[in-house]
Amino acid sequence: MSTAPFTTEPATLSLTPHEARRLFRTGQYAGYTSSFSRGYVQASLGILPQKYALDFATYCHRNAKACPLIAIGNVGDPYLPMLGDDLDIRTDVPCYRVFRDGEVVEEPTDIKHLWRDDLVAFVWGCSFSFEQALMDAGVTLRDIARGDNVVMYETNIDSLAVGAFAGKIVVTMRPLVPAQAILAIQVTSRFPSVHGAPIHIGLPELIGIGDLEAPLFNGKPPQMRPDEIPVFWACGVTPRLALQRARLPFCITHKPGSMVISDRLNTSLAIL
Amino acid sequence: MSTAPFTTEPATLSLTPHEARRLFRTGQYAGYTSSFSRGYVQASLGILPQKYALDFATYCHRNAKACPLIAIGNVGDPYLPMLGDDLDIRTDVPCYRVFRDGEVVEEPTDIKHLWRDDLVAFVWGCSFSFEQALMDAGVTLRDIARGDNVVMYETNIDSLAVGAFAGKIVVTMRPLVPAQAILAIQVTSRFPSVHGAPIHIGLPELIGIGDLEAPLFNGKPPQMRPDEIPVFWACGVTPRLALQRARLPFCITHKPGSMVISDRLNTSLAIL
Repeated sequence: MSTAPFTTEPATLSLTPHEARRLFRTGQYAGYTSSFSRGYVQASLGILPQKYALDFATYCHRNAKACPLIAIGNVGDPYLPMLGDDLDIRTDVPCYRVFRDGEVVEEPTDIKHLWRDDLVAFVWGCSFSFEQALMDAGVTLRDIARGDNVVMYETNIDSLAVGAFAGKIVVTMRPLVPAQAILAIQVTSRFPSVHGAPIHIGLPELIGIGDLEAPLFNGKPPQMRPDEIPVFWACGVTPRLALQRARLPFCITHKPGSMVISDRLNTSLAIL
Repeated sequence: MSTAPFTTEPATLSLTPHEARRLFRTGQYAGYTSSFSRGYVQASLGILPQKYALDFATYCHRNAKACPLIAIGNVGDPYLPMLGDDLDIRTDVPCYRVFRDGEVVEEPTDIKHLWRDDLVAFVWGCSFSFEQALMDAGVTLRDIARGDNVVMYETNIDSLAVGAFAGKIVVTMRPLVPAQAILAIQVTSRFPSVHGAPIHIGLPELIGIGDLEAPLFNGKPPQMRPDEIPVFWACGVTPRLALQRARLPFCITHKPGSMVISDRLNTSLAIL
């Protein structure tokens, strides 16, 4: 990588999704994907036995703001051509999390040894996809500017339970000045397949969030400013936690931050 | 009903969805629903055994423009509270079509005698929901003005097959002058859960339609005018035909034109 002052971005941002997946397939990279393949849809992964797959599909459908499915694999089929011609979900994610009875038992860089004829892969969208559109529209995203992860909270809003799948809705929050909050609602409404419009704005206590400065997962406090209001989007962590907490005998997710990179452009998800 | 010149609309348009469903539940009305409960979402119905339900859910997801699911019932549960608190899918549709091995065997006004613990109800949106928005935006819909059904065609575009479910994409077509065609694209883009934006415009031969004046199901010829172009939307008949042609041992649909009336307002489906 260059040391010139204008090129501090990682070279991996310009890898094509195909190139990135090839790298991950070797097992030589097991980290975050946010610095890869700028402009392409990154997404969450859940793999579970067919026995539970209809319930999970229904759960995602009923809670579509939190779990906007962008692909459902065929039973037993590890290929997801709708996301990438060559995409093999057993190898093309940098790192996986394997659960047995709700407990993490392994964090491998591929799951070839675990694949079974009854497994079904679910892939759902993530707010990475609308963040570029927000920035292009002039919305300042402080977490990105600071290099931090977006903050998340567990609300007191119940997701609509189906079978073993249940739990509270998890949200991401971006602090925005009022004019940018309005603009952010407009922009993200155009992206229904990656969470779409916010589900709440202002007044965090109404959705059970007592302290904005204490986000989930030991996230860095957002340091709200007096001229900002919090804007909340449903988050794809909701179905991931629902899957984990269902304590199925067996399931697999991506390791947080280490996502599926698809051949679809983020811009292709905008509906207007 | 009044004979005054300003009230030629059927009184049933002002029935609430609850009132309409109560009427259908009695079995006294087995006809079309288009003249009922103006402003509320009407939708298509497919009921099938759990054994095929994951495949059908996946088929609908992969072909979401043609099959925008708005509800998936719980296995064995005939109630769909997400569409109406009291909605009993066994009784609340005016008329059903029952298939065995792909053949129609019965067209009953309720399916209580056929309900089973392994049945799953799927409900998907219909273009009725965006037609009001089009008219409100000033788009002239000639079929509605003439009291005709919208014309449909089978294209040469393959839907993405899943399991037993396959077939060509069926489209509806509305003839529009160019400025209204543009406006119609804008307006329907806001309704992704009821087919959304058109999938094709102009040049019918590119999607395998040889003669616009010979629509499916013996529809009335649209009588295209020289200043009009055809605008094509994916149609919910696609999954209904896929379901029928899968020749499952057993499945049920609504009888064409006799749809599920939900408590949701059409306007609630607009995303922006």
